[in-house]
Amino acid sequence: MLDLARPRATITTPAAAAVFTMVLTQGPVSRVEIARRTGLSSAAVTKAARPFIEAGYLAELAATERTGPGAGRPASPLAVRPDREYFLGVKITHEELIGVVTDLRSEVVASAHRPLPSTAPETVAAELAALTGDLLGRSPAYRERCRCLGLAVSGDVDRATGLVRYSPFLSWHDVPLGELATGATGLAVTVENDVKALTVAEHWFGEGVGTSSFALVTIGLGIGCAVVVDDRLVTGARGVAGEIGHVPVGGDGPPCHCGGRGCVEAIAGIPAVLHAARRALGEPELTLDGAIAAARAGDPAAREVFARAGTALGRAMAAMANLIGPERIVVSGDLPGLAAYELLEQHLRQSFTQQAFGAAADCLLVLRPRPFEQWARGAAAVAIQTLFTLQER
Amino acid sequence: MLDLARPRATITTPAAAAVFTMVLTQGPVSRVEIARRTGLSSAAVTKAARPFIEAGYLAELAATERTGPGAGRPASPLAVRPDREYFLGVKITHEELIGVVTDLRSEVVASAHRPLPSTAPETVAAELAALTGDLLGRSPAYRERCRCLGLAVSGDVDRATGLVRYSPFLSWHDVPLGELATGATGLAVTVENDVKALTVAEHWFGEGVGTSSFALVTIGLGIGCAVVVDDRLVTGARGVAGEIGHVPVGGDGPPCHCGGRGCVEAIAGIPAVLHAARRALGEPELTLDGAIAAARAGDPAAREVFARAGTALGRAMAAMANLIGPERIVVSGDLPGLAAYELLEQHLRQSFTQQAFGAAADCLLVLRPRPFEQWARGAAAVAIQTLFTLQER
Ligand SMILES: [Zn+2]
Ligand SMILES: [Zn+2]
Repeated sequence: MLDLARPRATITTPAAAAVFTMVLTQGPVSRVEIARRTGLSSAAVTKAARPFIEAGYLAELAATERTGPGAGRPASPLAVRPDREYFLGVKITHEELIGVVTDLRSEVVASAHRPLPSTAPETVAAELAALTGDLLGRSPAYRERCRCLGLAVSGDVDRATGLVRYSPFLSWHDVPLGELATGATGLAVTVENDVKALTVAEHWFGEGVGTSSFALVTIGLGIGCAVVVDDRLVTGARGVAGEIGHVPVGGDGPPCHCGGRGCVEAIAGIPAVLHAARRALGEPELTLDGAIAAARAGDPAAREVFARAGTALGRAMAAMANLIGPERIVVSGDLPGLAAYELLEQHLRQSFTQQAFGAAADCLLVLRPRPFEQWARGAAAVAIQTLFTLQER
Repeated sequence: MLDLARPRATITTPAAAAVFTMVLTQGPVSRVEIARRTGLSSAAVTKAARPFIEAGYLAELAATERTGPGAGRPASPLAVRPDREYFLGVKITHEELIGVVTDLRSEVVASAHRPLPSTAPETVAAELAALTGDLLGRSPAYRERCRCLGLAVSGDVDRATGLVRYSPFLSWHDVPLGELATGATGLAVTVENDVKALTVAEHWFGEGVGTSSFALVTIGLGIGCAVVVDDRLVTGARGVAGEIGHVPVGGDGPPCHCGGRGCVEAIAGIPAVLHAARRALGEPELTLDGAIAAARAGDPAAREVFARAGTALGRAMAAMANLIGPERIVVSGDLPGLAAYELLEQHLRQSFTQQAFGAAADCLLVLRPRPFEQWARGAAAVAIQTLFTLQER
């Protein structure tokens, strides 16, 4: 049994952050191995780990292996106790809230949707309180061991202050969402851009684990992207970064809503694909599912639309790989079902390989659909990351 | 007079690196201001600065200003003593060595060229010894106060080990240049890719001072680039980064030697510009100077060639700004004279502004020719940076 009277863990030194983060994201792992990977002394690792063991966040597993021939002591790997703390994550769209509870390892243990009567910030805050109340009410463990709420919103977000500077889909300008949500829920709130939140989840708990440079690309109404370099999200000097959607891969066309030309978003965004498929098939009422079905059935005009989109995506990702050199890129998005990714994949990989420079072509590409709930999991992952990162002055 | 019996400065703590680097790159600056910008306490700043003052690297200027109304003590800004140490920098091309001596502030105080009889690594090492001997011989101060040599080479370089993995122009594969040069000169040697070296010089001592994200683009046979994010050069997971030359901005054409299509290098690299100008003007023997003169004289076909190159460069730089969001971008290169930059500039700026997303369009662009000697200065700047950065384990 967990002793809840024990204090919760906090991060007060760089060593504590390094050790706990390593066990959290790459554990179970022995102290010897932690020392090797972090460059800390064994004594420093033991000292850093102790408060987390005492507070119930880390546990020593039974010794299962020796560290080498003649090693005096068996290695007892350290592992996270996933149920020591729970985290709430909510993705806010213009029509609903999607919420999850995750454990410390970012596994979803509960989820719920809640429609939004309006996107007025006060309404959203009140609905957030109702949704989180619902989720926490599902288990005494959640209510007792959850103190952090992560929120994910599309648009321009300042994580440090919880301010949503601009969110077109919500029609928000300078909404102090962090403050409003803390007031409504009593929880410690973190707010992040939704694509960045998803990237944090992948970097700490998914395909990006163990990489220090990593990128995620999402296919939806727009083409979203976030980039991790040296283990940090790139934010851009003026708040603009990861705008892969407006990398010009089409030469002089087509025009894009951003004012540019040849943007990958204007070729491979869902509205662009749908528009092209309707024209190519001469069916003005065609749906995205219909376009996918036609391409799957072998219609050459429909296939060509997906081929062009895949090629544009591959080129833009190659541009990113050439400039930044991420170790892996995850491609995900809102396309319905696996079939759409299969239609894109071959062309995407082919144009990526053709356009990537030298060893950049070896960058691993992972394509897969993303359940919508994953946005909310991303929000919770940001809350986890914030809690266990040494906050800079 | 400098007391040369005093020990030379070394960096042993993060605070020492932060304080000395700030005075070096942004000084003169008061202790109060250093404390404010670094987040260190006043006591920590004073403690970190003391060994540098004692060793003659830093000096307190006469108090010239008070820190504010009622401030008890006048602020005595700290400044670097530029002549406390000198640095050698050499750019190695396939036909010659270009060498400079710089002071601590990266000002060039002496320079020399030396033709290379061959690019055999041992020959290059011997010629390096002769060149550095020549340069150091020009003043007793250089010989007494120079211990570091920076080398810049085009191609794939591992700064940490001094290994030149691959340099096509030198026909080198896995040449341990750092080791060879140390053996031949007795100096502490740093080796870096030439574009990265130039970027370090701009970041610490030029247009990039005070920015934490910054990029440099060079126009030459190829289009080179290096990117600084969070004050660190981006290296790429597989050693590939900053390859802006192979960002595909031309849609389906033209083909590039890299195997890709529409690469900016295949449109705006000097060979591509020359090739296009020869075709456009119907003069197969036209030189680059001739093409520039024709465009300057108003020939529309020649002007169009530079317009296309400028547009391609602007688009590729916008792609970089959208993805990474640098605060400033310096564009420089081997084009002969200012005139060529003037022919490119308007189109480059226009297409950059059109293609940059939102606030990324506010990124400052600085265009200007680069004297060839600047490559060597860059090499010396890398030696300075290496000496005064806390080396990671
Ligand atoms: Zn666009
Ligand atoms: Zn290319």
